[in-house]
Amino acid sequence: MSTLLENINSPADVKKLTMPELKQLARELREFIIESVSKTGGHLSSSLGCVELAIAIHYVFETPEDRLIWDVGHQAYAHKILTGRRDRMLTLRQYKGLSGFPKRSESPYDAFGAGHSSTSISAALGMAVAARAQGKTDRSHVAVIGDGAMTAGMVFEALNCAGDMKDIRLLVILNDNDCSISAPVGALNKHFTKLMSGRFYAQARDIGKAIVRPFPKLFDLTRRAEEYSKGMVSPQSTLFEEFGLNYHGPIDGHDLEALIPVLQNMKALPGPLVLHVVTEKGRGYEPAVHNPTKYHGISPFDASKGLVSSPHAKTYTEVFSDFLMDIAKEDERVVAITPAMEEGSGLVEFARTYPKRFFDVAIAEQHAATFAAGLAAEGLKPICCYYSTFSQRAFDQIVHDVALQNLPVLFAMDRGGLVGADGATHHGSFDLSFLRCIPNIVIMAPSNENDCRQMLYTGYMLDQPVVVRYPRGKGPGVPIEKQMHAIEIGKAVKVRSCGAAAGRRCAILAFGSMVEEALQIADEIDATVYDMRFVKPIDRQAVTEAVKEHDLVVTMEENVVIGGAGDACLETLASEGIKADVLQIGIPDRFIEQGTQMQLWHDCGMNKESVLKQIQERLKLEQAEP
Amino acid sequence: MSTLLENINSPADVKKLTMPELKQLARELREFIIESVSKTGGHLSSSLGCVELAIAIHYVFETPEDRLIWDVGHQAYAHKILTGRRDRMLTLRQYKGLSGFPKRSESPYDAFGAGHSSTSISAALGMAVAARAQGKTDRSHVAVIGDGAMTAGMVFEALNCAGDMKDIRLLVILNDNDCSISAPVGALNKHFTKLMSGRFYAQARDIGKAIVRPFPKLFDLTRRAEEYSKGMVSPQSTLFEEFGLNYHGPIDGHDLEALIPVLQNMKALPGPLVLHVVTEKGRGYEPAVHNPTKYHGISPFDASKGLVSSPHAKTYTEVFSDFLMDIAKEDERVVAITPAMEEGSGLVEFARTYPKRFFDVAIAEQHAATFAAGLAAEGLKPICCYYSTFSQRAFDQIVHDVALQNLPVLFAMDRGGLVGADGATHHGSFDLSFLRCIPNIVIMAPSNENDCRQMLYTGYMLDQPVVVRYPRGKGPGVPIEKQMHAIEIGKAVKVRSCGAAAGRRCAILAFGSMVEEALQIADEIDATVYDMRFVKPIDRQAVTEAVKEHDLVVTMEENVVIGGAGDACLETLASEGIKADVLQIGIPDRFIEQGTQMQLWHDCGMNKESVLKQIQERLKLEQAEP
Repeated sequence: MSTLLENINSPADVKKLTMPELKQLARELREFIIESVSKTGGHLSSSLGCVELAIAIHYVFETPEDRLIWDVGHQAYAHKILTGRRDRMLTLRQYKGLSGFPKRSESPYDAFGAGHSSTSISAALGMAVAARAQGKTDRSHVAVIGDGAMTAGMVFEALNCAGDMKDIRLLVILNDNDCSISAPVGALNKHFTKLMSGRFYAQARDIGKAIVRPFPKLFDLTRRAEEYSKGMVSPQSTLFEEFGLNYHGPIDGHDLEALIPVLQNMKALPGPLVLHVVTEKGRGYEPAVHNPTKYHGISPFDASKGLVSSPHAKTYTEVFSDFLMDIAKEDERVVAITPAMEEGSGLVEFARTYPKRFFDVAIAEQHAATFAAGLAAEGLKPICCYYSTFSQRAFDQIVHDVALQNLPVLFAMDRGGLVGADGATHHGSFDLSFLRCIPNIVIMAPSNENDCRQMLYTGYMLDQPVVVRYPRGKGPGVPIEKQMHAIEIGKAVKVRSCGAAAGRRCAILAFGSMVEEALQIADEIDATVYDMRFVKPIDRQAVTEAVKEHDLVVTMEENVVIGGAGDACLETLASEGIKADVLQIGIPDRFIEQGTQMQLWHDCGMNKESVLKQIQERLKLEQAEP
Repeated sequence: MSTLLENINSPADVKKLTMPELKQLARELREFIIESVSKTGGHLSSSLGCVELAIAIHYVFETPEDRLIWDVGHQAYAHKILTGRRDRMLTLRQYKGLSGFPKRSESPYDAFGAGHSSTSISAALGMAVAARAQGKTDRSHVAVIGDGAMTAGMVFEALNCAGDMKDIRLLVILNDNDCSISAPVGALNKHFTKLMSGRFYAQARDIGKAIVRPFPKLFDLTRRAEEYSKGMVSPQSTLFEEFGLNYHGPIDGHDLEALIPVLQNMKALPGPLVLHVVTEKGRGYEPAVHNPTKYHGISPFDASKGLVSSPHAKTYTEVFSDFLMDIAKEDERVVAITPAMEEGSGLVEFARTYPKRFFDVAIAEQHAATFAAGLAAEGLKPICCYYSTFSQRAFDQIVHDVALQNLPVLFAMDRGGLVGADGATHHGSFDLSFLRCIPNIVIMAPSNENDCRQMLYTGYMLDQPVVVRYPRGKGPGVPIEKQMHAIEIGKAVKVRSCGAAAGRRCAILAFGSMVEEALQIADEIDATVYDMRFVKPIDRQAVTEAVKEHDLVVTMEENVVIGGAGDACLETLASEGIKADVLQIGIPDRFIEQGTQMQLWHDCGMNKESVLKQIQERLKLEQAEP
């Protein structure tokens, strides 16, 4: 089908093309991406929006010598295809396959890895400063960042730093892909922007400004459109210029005839620069244009039919969603906060039903926690929803603003543990470790859907900070009681008792998502199993009892072993002066790549067979040295 | 002396005063603060700069019903004195005394606790939203934030969120205390600003803007002054207005005749507002005005003479500083990054000698880490300097941008452990826990000055992320070798061997600052002592050897026990299937208040006597059950 694309093996091949061929290449890339992502799943909308941008950047700049950094990186599929990874796209997000994000170890064209948003300007600035120090004055540094990522605080930290450096080569491309305004903006400004980005304008810009446009405030399209029109007639500084960066744009990010000359002009300009391009999420694939959120990150689908939703058992996210609706109805003090994860965190229905009690604070994890602390200080009942991996950004605020003041914020911590295809940047591997060390916090980990519901209710009832941490995906499918009741704090449940048979006795202290597997293992070796329920406070009695009654105690958790829930058991034993043989099962001390959950559990030695083997070896040792 | 101040026991008393009396009160407050802080130590400059602001706010607003939030809070001494805490000011920052920061449990006038910068707008916004939900439409919410704190990302996250809410009552007072420009700014604009903040202007502001001023870019005073003068003649939007907040100012923050009517006017205005006031750090105390940084946070001094520096042994900060100068001379790839802690982190000489290799990125901990990652990715040797407590803000960036990519950033982690008078918000209690769980990182903790130097050198030599974590203050005073050499990775040193005498045998595995005390304890009970040196990788051989050769193993660290270095020992034993009696000494699972280090160690059961007692009890138990 795609005769041009077949021959593109590196950016050097892109540079040989004529303008009509480049346009043809864009069309072929789109088809290829749709076809490919329909098979692998992935971030479709964003990548379709960046096809021309990727082509233009690689056409104009000398990658990989010029450094190109994609913020978040889920929009970089065209970039991957153009830089020699076309034939591996069918391994995207698969075990041992191409990463869904840029990754330094994958390609020299991936100048800096990504996954979490809003890091690109900081990283590019560091690289630009290094180039200056090394005398590489010709090297360009290009950071491509979406308007959504512009809401995170660290972008402003980086802009404040960049604006102060005049002798570096940094180009920030603001990829503005808010569909609702993209078309008019792109169409109106092409001509002026070409003018603007020329050298002449840059030299003359102190005299007067031709076209500028204020920074797009999210969630306020009316104001945005209005101010944009003002920008056309009266010179006005932009947010970027307040920080000392030269601003150019906006231009149509799908128009190669505009993009290429503008980038060529800007490549020659000194200092920190911003180019504002406007693109359309999902461009070229109608279902995705129509519903870019739905096609943001997707599972494999039938490209001809689009995504078809199917009935299925409840995910933990849905269990949370139901709980939230129920408790919100009962108690009007309940409010919910999300840093830009309304859909993923199960808040759509709540937002629709209680718009005044719903706060999407944009990608702003730090603010979300302290904002919640402020709400709690005044007697509301804030429920702050994080993905585990993103909560890493709010660590200080959880310590300093929530826990130190012992404020009753309930953290609904979704995606705890290994998340699958998103890989190392997105696993919730560390939360039990970095949260457990904070005083005043209660941490619960449900092993099934009903416990999740009752734990959320328990957390809501407590007058202190609480984390309920649950995994991505579905639970074991237990019936969910509509009636909510608080569970006893710090109390484990013995869910299986080993018999009094011959042989060494083993108890498994399992946390959250590992309880189900622990039960399966226990059936094989006739072990006792505790569903620990609480990571903090740990059930000291259950731990000591398990040790007293068994030769071996195994802890199982879907978190790094270091500092995790198993360590809570070890600390308990140490503080009691009890000697014990303990085997800790959990995520090992290395970054875990992408794959299905089963592949990764296997990889980590956390799958049933592997855990069984480890237990049996340890029991043999026990036998050997009585 | 102070006849007026003696009778001020709450803001109600302030409200009774006439303008001449308010001015007299300001003078008396200044004298009182200087006198008081000269005895207790504390944040002098900032608090002197906010005397009139505190008076005016309490005069105009109905605190504590109106919520007043001081960002960071080190400028709030006048506020504390006016709100019934005058007589306790001599206990400031002392054990069991008044906190150096606002603290909810200390006074109803302290609406939200602080210590780390840039949280006030998020918290005030949460409170304002809560008031709206509760129908408390008359309640004002005032956040006072310094220009320095405006560089932290979470402020922009909060502004983006606030600007979107039109039906709340939020007043952000930007306290601009950059001395170099304060006088002309304050003087020039009083008249216009009074006009601006009137109701009429607010209603008419959509038509045209009278005076506005661009956001002050730090480090760029020339541009700042120039733009300010532009602001006088041509209307221009401010950064705050880009975010949708109504901006007013700047006005002279020491002129009560301007402050009070402006605040009265603004109190009546709806929506999120910004008032820009200009103040002088150290106002009213000449030595502090002359050198506000020196008088920012100080120890007790003679008020008549000012701070006199005295010769003393080297602090760990100075050891780091010397190392940095030495290595920078040898290797021009070495660069240093600080988030606004040039002086505290020992970077003054480096910054003066190598200005092009020094990066003060402002209060921007997140950016600092990723910026360092960018530098490291390109082959420079970045040394990123944090106070332990502030590094909590960079947790995600250390995980995602540094460690995951295994980039050689050397983190000089100062103030690890208990820091003393700054209290709960500033202790470095958690770093070993939240850093230890991150893969790829090497963590060292020196027990003396020379080890600190050699560990920094070792870290510099490694091609991966490294943390060298050292405490506030001085070490034991060992001689420092000028020659630098790398130490063996993951290798502990046995620094004392117990004799073969009768009685149960005990080994202490001590980390960093606890080694000195461990040796003293060991002398009393003839114990073995290991200076563990490495928190990660832990010396597994030392741990297992200690267990095999002793009845009791004691771990000692100046970090929370939960998830800390002692847990690394427990994990080692568990993974080896070794049963052992281990006693963990460290910071307990609660927030630790202020006090001297000795008071706090005592409070935590970490002082010599307490540890000895715990060991002896445990040894008795050992004896009892062989």
